[in-house]
Amino acid sequence: MELSAFLTSVGINSAIAVLLFLLYSVLRKQPGNLNVYFGPRLALASERQNYPPSLLRYLPSPSWVVKAWETTEDDILALGGMDALVFVRIIVFSIRIFCIAAVICMFLVLPVNYYGKEMIHHDISSETLEIFTIANVKESSEWLWTHCFALYVITCSACGLLYFEHKSISRTRLAYITGSPPNPSHFTVLVRAVPWSAEQSYSESVKEFFMKYYASSYLSHHMVHRSSRVQRLMNDAERICRVFKSVSAEQKSKPCLLPCFCGAPNSFDILSNEPDNVRGNIGLDVSNLATEKENAVAFVCFKTRYAAVVAAEILHSENPMLWVTEMAPEPNDVLWSNLSIPYRQLWIRKIAVLVASIAFMFVFLIPVTFVQSLTQLEQLSHAFPFLKGMFKKKFISQVVTGYLPSVILILFLYAAPPTMMVFSTIEGSVAHSGRKKSACIKVLYFTIWNVFFVNVLSGSVIGQLTKLSSVKDVPKHLAEAIPNQVGFFMTYVLTSGWASLSVEIMQPFFLLRNILKKFICRIKNNPPNGTLSFPYQTEVPRLLLFGFLGFICSVMAPLILPFLLIYFVLAYLVYKNQIINVYKKSYESGGQYWPIAHKTIIASLVLTQIIALGIFGIKKSPVASGFTIPLIVGTLLFNEYCRQRFFPSFQKIAAQVPWKFLPFYFCMLVCVCVPSLMGYFFTGSYANGSTR
Amino acid sequence: MELSAFLTSVGINSAIAVLLFLLYSVLRKQPGNLNVYFGPRLALASERQNYPPSLLRYLPSPSWVVKAWETTEDDILALGGMDALVFVRIIVFSIRIFCIAAVICMFLVLPVNYYGKEMIHHDISSETLEIFTIANVKESSEWLWTHCFALYVITCSACGLLYFEHKSISRTRLAYITGSPPNPSHFTVLVRAVPWSAEQSYSESVKEFFMKYYASSYLSHHMVHRSSRVQRLMNDAERICRVFKSVSAEQKSKPCLLPCFCGAPNSFDILSNEPDNVRGNIGLDVSNLATEKENAVAFVCFKTRYAAVVAAEILHSENPMLWVTEMAPEPNDVLWSNLSIPYRQLWIRKIAVLVASIAFMFVFLIPVTFVQSLTQLEQLSHAFPFLKGMFKKKFISQVVTGYLPSVILILFLYAAPPTMMVFSTIEGSVAHSGRKKSACIKVLYFTIWNVFFVNVLSGSVIGQLTKLSSVKDVPKHLAEAIPNQVGFFMTYVLTSGWASLSVEIMQPFFLLRNILKKFICRIKNNPPNGTLSFPYQTEVPRLLLFGFLGFICSVMAPLILPFLLIYFVLAYLVYKNQIINVYKKSYESGGQYWPIAHKTIIASLVLTQIIALGIFGIKKSPVASGFTIPLIVGTLLFNEYCRQRFFPSFQKIAAQVPWKFLPFYFCMLVCVCVPSLMGYFFTGSYANGSTR
Repeated sequence: MELSAFLTSVGINSAIAVLLFLLYSVLRKQPGNLNVYFGPRLALASERQNYPPSLLRYLPSPSWVVKAWETTEDDILALGGMDALVFVRIIVFSIRIFCIAAVICMFLVLPVNYYGKEMIHHDISSETLEIFTIANVKESSEWLWTHCFALYVITCSACGLLYFEHKSISRTRLAYITGSPPNPSHFTVLVRAVPWSAEQSYSESVKEFFMKYYASSYLSHHMVHRSSRVQRLMNDAERICRVFKSVSAEQKSKPCLLPCFCGAPNSFDILSNEPDNVRGNIGLDVSNLATEKENAVAFVCFKTRYAAVVAAEILHSENPMLWVTEMAPEPNDVLWSNLSIPYRQLWIRKIAVLVASIAFMFVFLIPVTFVQSLTQLEQLSHAFPFLKGMFKKKFISQVVTGYLPSVILILFLYAAPPTMMVFSTIEGSVAHSGRKKSACIKVLYFTIWNVFFVNVLSGSVIGQLTKLSSVKDVPKHLAEAIPNQVGFFMTYVLTSGWASLSVEIMQPFFLLRNILKKFICRIKNNPPNGTLSFPYQTEVPRLLLFGFLGFICSVMAPLILPFLLIYFVLAYLVYKNQIINVYKKSYESGGQYWPIAHKTIIASLVLTQIIALGIFGIKKSPVASGFTIPLIVGTLLFNEYCRQRFFPSFQKIAAQVPWKFLPFYFCMLVCVCVPSLMGYFFTGSYANGSTR
Repeated sequence: MELSAFLTSVGINSAIAVLLFLLYSVLRKQPGNLNVYFGPRLALASERQNYPPSLLRYLPSPSWVVKAWETTEDDILALGGMDALVFVRIIVFSIRIFCIAAVICMFLVLPVNYYGKEMIHHDISSETLEIFTIANVKESSEWLWTHCFALYVITCSACGLLYFEHKSISRTRLAYITGSPPNPSHFTVLVRAVPWSAEQSYSESVKEFFMKYYASSYLSHHMVHRSSRVQRLMNDAERICRVFKSVSAEQKSKPCLLPCFCGAPNSFDILSNEPDNVRGNIGLDVSNLATEKENAVAFVCFKTRYAAVVAAEILHSENPMLWVTEMAPEPNDVLWSNLSIPYRQLWIRKIAVLVASIAFMFVFLIPVTFVQSLTQLEQLSHAFPFLKGMFKKKFISQVVTGYLPSVILILFLYAAPPTMMVFSTIEGSVAHSGRKKSACIKVLYFTIWNVFFVNVLSGSVIGQLTKLSSVKDVPKHLAEAIPNQVGFFMTYVLTSGWASLSVEIMQPFFLLRNILKKFICRIKNNPPNGTLSFPYQTEVPRLLLFGFLGFICSVMAPLILPFLLIYFVLAYLVYKNQIINVYKKSYESGGQYWPIAHKTIIASLVLTQIIALGIFGIKKSPVASGFTIPLIVGTLLFNEYCRQRFFPSFQKIAAQVPWKFLPFYFCMLVCVCVPSLMGYFFTGSYANGSTR
């Protein structure tokens, strides 16, 4: 790809991004859009009145940028929870490391690349992008130490930054957990696979078991009920009733349209908010119907957090597939529909989902192959001769090679997260946060595989997949392929990165829905969109993918770094704005995204080093190769150290801190609010039974 | 290899084996050898007088076979513990599965192989062994379904047998644990990485910590002390003193020579049995010297088993590398010298040992290459022309190809287990049983790699290692190579298998030592060899290796199966005899060898199937290939199921059963014998401090 084609892409993207950001700064000031851009805050306070006078409303202003910039981490933690904080820390980490990388690579590596071969340089705009990559350095050049040195600087800074981030996040996480107000989930254990007995009901079994082994700390338990057919019909009736109500704009408090279309709503909310007349009208006592069908699942409440943690971690039965315990998710976080999945199915579901995900990844190769063919115009015009004339026009050719491939890829990539969410639901996670985390991991693998590996390893994808089978040659293949693909990655950062930020901040879907509702359905007093929770399963993989591309390209093609830095700075502002204004924290995983980020960053570093090793091999620089190997070993050792030192505290809660005051504190709590807390769970499990 | 060469090998081995077994039946009846062959029983009772009258003593008799056959599993459990039982169960499983395999393969597969190609069969003794393998079946033969069917039968029976074995072993293990008399280790937790504090000693820190978090269940604690230089000198003095005593035959109770040569003895025994005059003579108060140097390691005793299990499984500190807890090993099992290794070193030690083990495996290729060259006489006589004349003599050529390679390999292989034991010690396990288990895994990988893969994948080993780098072609390479190597595997079963059993039962090392002592050192009243514990680290890998070879060869070269079956039946008798007569259970891992066996068996099955897939591919039988793939998937699913269903109960003790009566029972126990139990630990840790 020529520099001019690339600059076309930069121009188009910058223009679109600036336009959309300006548009956003206007749209957000319109009173009609408050429920799109300030959903959760609307639900809290009546900011509806504070919009500026009419003229100023239509002028773009940078106020949101200033506000996002000024938001502190404490605000983020308070508003978005630990997950949001981790998300912001990932961005901050990326900005820091790519600042360092940009400085060292732009001033040291880029000149070496550009003047790497003795040649006459033309006008800079007609140079191909490859001139700026390591491919332009001549064989056994004496200047390859600069690349090796840059690799050392980047790796060491990354490891150092990671270490301090780890330390600070662990500390914050612990403080957050200990400082957070007592939550019923802290005292509750989810028991699955209660063994069936002919003599007694599940409920009696649970009671007997916990009375026996946890006599001093057992408080109470609540079974989860399966909905009978009648109840399912009733739920449907209720849902339809809600739709009618919302359409006739009688209902005041909660949104309804989305749940109707998207399947299972947060039905706990529904029942508890619903007046009893629905049930009354039908004239059936649902509670009796429901209690008849107990699931082998129960929430068991303990008197102390410590007892709950102990009960969650101990193996209870000789048969490890009975009496399986884990800490209960927060009430908001429970994925009721998955509670009725028999525990013994879980392992086979996980395997099935793994296989399905891998199959999906390979089916996805078809659009990627098409995208790939677009960047190689000669091949395409060879295959379709009638296009030849069109490609001769310079502008069209530039748009096609510089812009279209990424757009097509992005459009196809939008299909992945929902699919992965479905997979994660099937997998059987009992918590929304767990499902999101699982989907996040799947999407991460998926995007890195599709955006990076498939693009790098292939012109004619499937035919060249055989290359992968020869393990030893992978670094060499990668080293050969990456400099050729730098143009694609750079445009990908521009199109997917910058554009996705614009889309994120504009929220076109909800904006459109809002407009539709207002002007076509004529619904006034549109309730705020308060149930929207942060889409970690798409955004975390995106951030990590750009970090991955950044590391891989840093030494080989440093021209990508400034664009990446712009992306991360924009992301910092946009996501902070979204966290404080748009998304509501309804559940969270407690910072579980950080270990994912850590692993991805380490994997990126190691892959970068392996590819560098391949390149140094191709360029015949044994010294640089020799120095790279200890770097790989060092990075892996650092990873192992972090795994030992930091990871356990993300999986378990340490006994040392939280129990200091809580059992004691809890005595008070039990007296005052346990009935209501228990009721919380009880109503939830009861109302749902609901396993559609 | 020709059948006649192989029969030579069978002849030599059978003769040697029969001779040695007969010799054993005579030697065991000699009163002078009682302490070699009946060590632990001698220590218990005075069976010394019961040997038969003088004439009968010199006649071979099958009495030991009858006795070994009649020994029940309960006896094994009582005498050898859970590990011995698991060992015997592995043999029983192997006998069962290879009976089934032998029946189906000898009567169905072998004829198909032998008549696989339309050819005139010569005199059977001059046929090569390859005639009996799948290599003799012609391409796209219609009879390949027999191989596929045999594979199905073997896999299904293996999985079924494994499942029932798993169930029975889990049950026995639980009954054994709950039924065993209370042991101090059941109530004790080993705490490592106690944080250093300037204000207070480690001991005070431990007390404060456990008084705070386990106020109701904490009983006491005992620090582990590092030996000062003076104490080390004292230990040496004590040891020398013991040697003098034993040489002058004054000491009555315990053996001494071996500990002197083999390094650290069970010094807990030494000090507690020793009269105080040694210490008194030197005139130093060792206890004062020792207490000055506390390690950051403590044994913490709890009032109930439950409390101990909880304390062992909970994460205690925000920093997961502080306050690390695990269940304490039994007093006999503690590897004192490793207790003083700082916990933060462990992860790096493990990695270092892993790297060293892999390096050792590759260094070992040198003797294996040599062995390999012996089976290909043409190459060897090409390289060393002066040997040509010698190889022309038929008998020498038969011995060299049929017998020598295995012998050389076995001799070299004897170096592996001690090396792996050293590695496992460096790794930092705190229990003898843990170290043995770790060494067992290393030896297992080592032998399978060296005996199987290196032999199969290479004539000229290192040059062909590159074949491994092409993942896709591995099944094909294996499928091509295995039929050629069947001769080697068969002789390996004969030499290594049969001969190792003879060596095992003869105990030549101890026999020789006994004779030396009696006739050269003139030591009468030689004390019985009571400290010998079962060498699981060499015997478990050996059994599993033969099982592995059996599975791999079963369908491809069924001729190996009868010899394997004879090996396993002999092993059943010999090892049972050794467990009840020779070895003493001084510590045990509680059946932890079963999961290792399970994983190896599954891996063998899957590898067999993959190789069969390769062969069916080569033989152009798409139907057989097609039917093999679901078999692989099924086996992997079965493995996953077992991992979920059975493995956790090998790692943790279930809460449901053991706590039923023990906390209660313990109240009695605490009053009566805790002082002595605690003293047990205390003396042990104290006397040892001992970290040489």
